[in-house]
Amino acid sequence: MTKNSSNTMALAPSTANKRETICIFGTGDFGRALGQKLIQSGYPVVFGSRSTKTSSLIPRGAEVLSHAEAAQRAAIIIVAIQRQHYSFLTPLAEALQGKVLVDISNNLKLDQYPESNAQHLAQLLPAAKVVKAFNTVSAWALQSGTLDASRQVFVCGDDMEAKQMVMDLVRALGLTPLDQGSLLAAREIENYPLQLFPMWRFPIFLSLGLTIFFFLYCLALDIIYPYVYQKKDLSFLIAISIPNKVCPVLALVLLGLVYVPGVLAAILQLWRGTKYRRFPGWLDRWMLCRKQLGLVALAFASVHVLYTLVTPIRSYVKWRTSSQVVSQALSNTTEPLNTTNAWLSDSYLALGILGFFLFVLLGITSLPSVSNSVNWREFRFVQSKLGYLTLVLCTAHTLVYGGKWFLVPSSYKWYLPPIYMLSLIIPCAVLVVKFVLILPCLDKPLTQIRQGWERNPQYSE
Amino acid sequence: MTKNSSNTMALAPSTANKRETICIFGTGDFGRALGQKLIQSGYPVVFGSRSTKTSSLIPRGAEVLSHAEAAQRAAIIIVAIQRQHYSFLTPLAEALQGKVLVDISNNLKLDQYPESNAQHLAQLLPAAKVVKAFNTVSAWALQSGTLDASRQVFVCGDDMEAKQMVMDLVRALGLTPLDQGSLLAAREIENYPLQLFPMWRFPIFLSLGLTIFFFLYCLALDIIYPYVYQKKDLSFLIAISIPNKVCPVLALVLLGLVYVPGVLAAILQLWRGTKYRRFPGWLDRWMLCRKQLGLVALAFASVHVLYTLVTPIRSYVKWRTSSQVVSQALSNTTEPLNTTNAWLSDSYLALGILGFFLFVLLGITSLPSVSNSVNWREFRFVQSKLGYLTLVLCTAHTLVYGGKWFLVPSSYKWYLPPIYMLSLIIPCAVLVVKFVLILPCLDKPLTQIRQGWERNPQYSE
Amino acid sequence: MTKNSSNTMALAPSTANKRETICIFGTGDFGRALGQKLIQSGYPVVFGSRSTKTSSLIPRGAEVLSHAEAAQRAAIIIVAIQRQHYSFLTPLAEALQGKVLVDISNNLKLDQYPESNAQHLAQLLPAAKVVKAFNTVSAWALQSGTLDASRQVFVCGDDMEAKQMVMDLVRALGLTPLDQGSLLAAREIENYPLQLFPMWRFPIFLSLGLTIFFFLYCLALDIIYPYVYQKKDLSFLIAISIPNKVCPVLALVLLGLVYVPGVLAAILQLWRGTKYRRFPGWLDRWMLCRKQLGLVALAFASVHVLYTLVTPIRSYVKWRTSSQVVSQALSNTTEPLNTTNAWLSDSYLALGILGFFLFVLLGITSLPSVSNSVNWREFRFVQSKLGYLTLVLCTAHTLVYGGKWFLVPSSYKWYLPPIYMLSLIIPCAVLVVKFVLILPCLDKPLTQIRQGWERNPQYSE
Repeated sequence: MTKNSSNTMALAPSTANKRETICIFGTGDFGRALGQKLIQSGYPVVFGSRSTKTSSLIPRGAEVLSHAEAAQRAAIIIVAIQRQHYSFLTPLAEALQGKVLVDISNNLKLDQYPESNAQHLAQLLPAAKVVKAFNTVSAWALQSGTLDASRQVFVCGDDMEAKQMVMDLVRALGLTPLDQGSLLAAREIENYPLQLFPMWRFPIFLSLGLTIFFFLYCLALDIIYPYVYQKKDLSFLIAISIPNKVCPVLALVLLGLVYVPGVLAAILQLWRGTKYRRFPGWLDRWMLCRKQLGLVALAFASVHVLYTLVTPIRSYVKWRTSSQVVSQALSNTTEPLNTTNAWLSDSYLALGILGFFLFVLLGITSLPSVSNSVNWREFRFVQSKLGYLTLVLCTAHTLVYGGKWFLVPSSYKWYLPPIYMLSLIIPCAVLVVKFVLILPCLDKPLTQIRQGWERNPQYSE
Repeated sequence: MTKNSSNTMALAPSTANKRETICIFGTGDFGRALGQKLIQSGYPVVFGSRSTKTSSLIPRGAEVLSHAEAAQRAAIIIVAIQRQHYSFLTPLAEALQGKVLVDISNNLKLDQYPESNAQHLAQLLPAAKVVKAFNTVSAWALQSGTLDASRQVFVCGDDMEAKQMVMDLVRALGLTPLDQGSLLAAREIENYPLQLFPMWRFPIFLSLGLTIFFFLYCLALDIIYPYVYQKKDLSFLIAISIPNKVCPVLALVLLGLVYVPGVLAAILQLWRGTKYRRFPGWLDRWMLCRKQLGLVALAFASVHVLYTLVTPIRSYVKWRTSSQVVSQALSNTTEPLNTTNAWLSDSYLALGILGFFLFVLLGITSLPSVSNSVNWREFRFVQSKLGYLTLVLCTAHTLVYGGKWFLVPSSYKWYLPPIYMLSLIIPCAVLVVKFVLILPCLDKPLTQIRQGWERNPQYSE
Repeated sequence: MTKNSSNTMALAPSTANKRETICIFGTGDFGRALGQKLIQSGYPVVFGSRSTKTSSLIPRGAEVLSHAEAAQRAAIIIVAIQRQHYSFLTPLAEALQGKVLVDISNNLKLDQYPESNAQHLAQLLPAAKVVKAFNTVSAWALQSGTLDASRQVFVCGDDMEAKQMVMDLVRALGLTPLDQGSLLAAREIENYPLQLFPMWRFPIFLSLGLTIFFFLYCLALDIIYPYVYQKKDLSFLIAISIPNKVCPVLALVLLGLVYVPGVLAAILQLWRGTKYRRFPGWLDRWMLCRKQLGLVALAFASVHVLYTLVTPIRSYVKWRTSSQVVSQALSNTTEPLNTTNAWLSDSYLALGILGFFLFVLLGITSLPSVSNSVNWREFRFVQSKLGYLTLVLCTAHTLVYGGKWFLVPSSYKWYLPPIYMLSLIIPCAVLVVKFVLILPCLDKPLTQIRQGWERNPQYSE
């Protein structure tokens, strides 16, 4: 299917093929997969290779030529070879003059080389137009057709026309090109496939650290303390009871931390009297990982719910219940219903259930496809209004649960407060400050500051 | 980066820049954010402003000129100023002749002005080509790069070529343009960012109303009745017991209401003998909010599940269980296992679990990204077949749960039926009518009517 | 709105309309819906019909002409008529010469005709350029604007230019065109809307078969055995107890089966010493439906969780608990806490909760919109690392739960092992083989084989 053959058949429409030939340098895994996909999409493909004998691995319909010959046939050349072999392209500089070279290479480590592979290629062949693309797509996905992970192809390059040609090619393969700007962006694009959840790193390390701290805290108070003073072996509490204290505490603390940066930003804006000064770097970063913090908090809350719901199935709890009942029966007493207890117990459960329900709702709206189908007003309504309601409910859940023990001295073992008191500090502080901030005397100037670009004539023209 | 500089460097491909200059009127928040983004995507940007001194807020690389000078440089002018300042553009009418003016403005209220901002602009400058775009994108999202909510940019305009140019610009910024037609659509596009879940309004108000009704109904029968006749204070039932009656009732009623319009439409089509007459407006609207109704029903069902699962942890339930056991022990009796009870209790739980499981499955398939990856046959199979199965299971769950009390006079306090009997009316009616409709004598003509366009020669040619 | 009118009005920009006229053959349901949508998007539309009188069903703004006249007006003709009526187009062959004919037809059955409708049309009219498109879109969705299911439009055709024109048209309607290659793909595209979850068929049939087998196995051991030997009627166990044994067993077996093909592939690659030979067909197919297998396993695990959590509410369980307590009270004994039991019971619950939590996490990351927003390294990390961790936790959960009964002869009724022992075979085998494969002496050559395309000079150039 060369251009010649398609020209002669132009009058027979069912076989006319006006797509331009694409050349691929390198017959490795990815080169062959891409060649296969290009042929399926109607592009004639020539491979440039050192040995020009067609192997069985080369996709059917593709030609294999020497590098120079292959380069002559096409305007776009996909460079599917390793960076360390780029140097052998320099003798071909003349054949590659003015051609669009698509660099698809990846590295094995973040920032492996001082300059990106694409920039390196552009320096070796200054007369060619280098475009970075396709490096985020996997060969296996191209071959099997299962593009489960990203259909997005990041594209960058200094020559607009060359970039446009490559973006059209990407679109023709059923993928979505995303223009990332000039070739300077190649470094970031090459690092992208090597990243492992960069936005999740801080929330996960933070919650790991807090988990360890709170776990040891509980261990001391719930297992070591009774062992020391009462010689009781309660080590089995490690499996469920202690995790079920640590999880809700972490969920509440992390949920509180989601709303801290917003409150800090508001205070900063009020104090500065303008929104046109950048926040400190740590605050910016904190604001950008709020979604991840919230989702980690939701994970802890979910585990807490499951841990709580299995309570009646636990062998220890069954034993405790039955021995209480047996001792009641043996002492021949029937306790009357304590209505206050019934109220308290039902209230904290109800608050917890509603809080968890809203929390899950927040989690669902943060799914990309859901958040993509709402407008900004709706998104902010859910994340801010519903978010604060969740925080209020969860804080109330903890307060009602533990409230009665605040003033009981025996709950302060080794003079340390119970863990749920610690968990209340951040959420309560956030809620108090937020409550102050929505007082009209502070809310009005803050709203004016935030709409500054709309009302302030020197900025909005 | 003016056009001149790029021309002189045309032979040095790595810096060639053939993108057209974009002009932005107004240096407010959104204007600057858009300018920054345009520069990142390789567009030269000039700002048109009253004061031409470059402030530190202007993105680096952009020029600031007077309005008239800036307009001369570019074919596309983005009007990032408030509607109330549009009038000052009229003196520039000559400079703006034939230019593409992109109106990006938003209002503060729905339908704030008699005509949309874009139409207003078009009337002020009849010689310019006005295109509405970008108003659904937030400045903060553009700056921070976190386009969590919508990447979709609604575009409309009367001039096809101008619209095409703007859509290409949108695409170059990594956003998705959606052509909404002529400038008449600007009104709807300007209202879009101000909307707050319009499709959810009816389902949420309906369920709020029903919740209040059923809550008061339960309050009367479960708390006021025993208080009046037995002087018992059962007010603590408000926290869990009563919500756990209201939630399943609402879930079942709303799930029934999801299937009512489909059944009504079928009856209407059968009666009319054609599908080519429009349904009444209320039926159309009802059909369009079935998804939202179903999801609200799922929310109530989920809360019901959580409320039910915490039952054994409730202090009241623990007290009731233990006092029963103690009294058994004291009276020295051991009850034998009642197999019928075991069967009934296990059956309604099993039916509820399976019904809830299918309900969650329906909810998952209504996520945009999931429903987007199935074809119409699969979508209809899930939403219709699995949906009816869910309704059958949930109705059976309620029937088995409450069945034994239907004929017991003591369950009719104040001659009112228990709440779950009320909840069964709509689902049972829907299921009976649906069962009648799938009888061959009715199903065959209905199928023929619905395939009318396929079989009826006067319509399908 | 013909081309003439737009030319004369070219100077009045607000009404200029440069979109090309589209012709639609056939005034059936889909033809009219598409016509309506095209008009909304600014395209002039003419309908070609046998009777040229405009009916009230024809969208406003469209003209109705004879076929020949209508065809003359447009370059693109949408053929919205049934395949069996295609023959009447042959007399129009001359008028259709060189035109782009868009075949939008669907069949009623998979592979209904020897060749696809589009190929049939192309044979009838060899001088026209046939493009297949739009067949996956529903008329109802076009009319109501609710494109819940797919916005994707598969397009194929032999003429590149014609295909490009149709793809632009698709894009202008706000839909996403996907180029599927030459007209040979029409067969698959026509089959697509008739498919019903083809990837799910094998996992669902497999799990159905296994469910029936394990259900009968449990029925024999738990109900028939006690009935035969102890004359006890335990039939009520069918509702919850037996399903709650079958569900976890199936979840574990299916989760094991997800990881079997990966392990087999690794063994095969090690044995062959190359990755460049295709796997047997069954292994390929198995690998492609791993996601579906995993999700079915998750469904069984979720039902198992719900079944387990309702345990304390079951009437049978309540009866069993209270009769144990009563008999304890009557015999005047108080059992001390068995710490080993408490440890075992808490451990298997904790393992199960954590395993289920990770399982749900895996399920969430397999949602299209979530998996689409991670890169390949992250996707593989979640699906492989977290997946194996889930398998380890769930296997450990089952081992700890049933471990103590392995050596008790009374658990082997009729010499058959309890069901959870059967469920452990596949997961344990997978974990053992996987453990062997990650030993350095095997892992190193395997990694080299898999990176063959990177290190082996004859392939990577």
